[in-house]
Amino acid sequence: MTMATLRDQGSEPAATGVAARLAIRRGSHAGPTSGLAPGFVQANLAILPKDLAEAFLRFCQLNPKPCPLIGVSAPGDWRIPALGENLDIRTDLPRYRVWHDGAVVDEPQDLLRWWRDDLVSFAIGCSFSFEHALIEDGIELRHITCNCTVPMYRTAIETVPAGPFRGPLVVSMRPMTPADAIRAVQITTRFPAVHGAPVHIGKPELIGIADIGAPDWGDAVPIRDDELPVFWACGVTPQSVIMAVRPEFCITHYPGAMLVTDRRNNEFAIM
Amino acid sequence: MTMATLRDQGSEPAATGVAARLAIRRGSHAGPTSGLAPGFVQANLAILPKDLAEAFLRFCQLNPKPCPLIGVSAPGDWRIPALGENLDIRTDLPRYRVWHDGAVVDEPQDLLRWWRDDLVSFAIGCSFSFEHALIEDGIELRHITCNCTVPMYRTAIETVPAGPFRGPLVVSMRPMTPADAIRAVQITTRFPAVHGAPVHIGKPELIGIADIGAPDWGDAVPIRDDELPVFWACGVTPQSVIMAVRPEFCITHYPGAMLVTDRRNNEFAIM
Repeated sequence: MTMATLRDQGSEPAATGVAARLAIRRGSHAGPTSGLAPGFVQANLAILPKDLAEAFLRFCQLNPKPCPLIGVSAPGDWRIPALGENLDIRTDLPRYRVWHDGAVVDEPQDLLRWWRDDLVSFAIGCSFSFEHALIEDGIELRHITCNCTVPMYRTAIETVPAGPFRGPLVVSMRPMTPADAIRAVQITTRFPAVHGAPVHIGKPELIGIADIGAPDWGDAVPIRDDELPVFWACGVTPQSVIMAVRPEFCITHYPGAMLVTDRRNNEFAIM
Repeated sequence: MTMATLRDQGSEPAATGVAARLAIRRGSHAGPTSGLAPGFVQANLAILPKDLAEAFLRFCQLNPKPCPLIGVSAPGDWRIPALGENLDIRTDLPRYRVWHDGAVVDEPQDLLRWWRDDLVSFAIGCSFSFEHALIEDGIELRHITCNCTVPMYRTAIETVPAGPFRGPLVVSMRPMTPADAIRAVQITTRFPAVHGAPVHIGKPELIGIADIGAPDWGDAVPIRDDELPVFWACGVTPQSVIMAVRPEFCITHYPGAMLVTDRRNNEFAIM
């Protein structure tokens, strides 16, 4: 299945987080969540059995830049009240991926038949929030101009391990003029809950990226002579780390089909 | 005369701004002010006749990054109460330069014989304050490691003109690893009154610097392969702009012999 099969059913885009979730829950929105509920925080989802969840929680706390945890459920509980009152993690994302031993076994539109009493849900901040703030400041984001996916790279920087979870930091890259890069540091510093400030600027080889034109995920974008590549810790890191463990069972969001919350992007600004 | 002739008289360094000024005023400190009154803001000084001062005040307001004005006197008044209660601009710097038509005519230890009723004093923030914050954060400053003067460069960036005052932005350069450069943007952003965030990172040629090894003022410092040059707007800009006008009469501080104020560096942090 490709993203093209995930399409909106034609109704007006939901204006709030809860409206988006209710539309998704009742089946009237089955597409990507990009553009839904503008100004509301969207999150990456990872669901793990309780026996792995404790170590994964520690992993997130040890690696807050790639894994900014904005919500976590109690075992077996499908609610995350910190992110929305009327929120059912089993039904409120447009599509999911169910994994067994590291392989996708289902891509369902709800988790009702897969839910278990030992599952713990992790909502991890995503770059949509800080990109919203950059765009509002007038900074061009090349992958949006090019209408493609942000380029992402596996780096030589190791995350801090916890239990079985370990592996390289994954970063996303946005080319910017030096002046825009400085401004982007200032803006994204305000949003530590959604990856925060960049982890690297310029010189991709210093963090183990041999070919900036060959991203490990997403699409290559052009970098002009007057620009520097600016790198942010990426939410693909926890996904990549989970998959390396090949858990007997886990669930993630389907790419592009995020959890839409009731929290506003501006709430996540620390000043 | 060289800086070597400006030496401390052997007493204990003053612990506060006012103690430093009183020691200088009574002649018991005649050296550079670096290291005096740690934690207190030091400032560049420019003194202009009233007929030029109005345009220069506008110039500073139009160019706050190179010319962060932290105090200005009334015409003929030797006090700047915003910077210290017991402050006499005629006596409280270790040494001055008196200029006629663009040439140094005197380097006196006080201005008592040069003072005029039409003189306006401008105190302009200097990089000592933000460097103090960078060092406290554990960031290495190469020119301090090398025990030399920070390298400064004339750029192709024009200041916004006001009256006769116009000319290129001058920047200071500090080499840093990308991670330190990102941290330095965060730290110096907190200090807009002392030049604030960098104006440029990497790629010197983009701002008209042809040879990073040949600064226009100060000393060249080594840049390692894993570092980027980071550029801040520099207080040499207003000095350079004033000198280009070749005013009939003006006064500046002697290099390294700054105005020590009663304001603390931390007061200048906006958050």
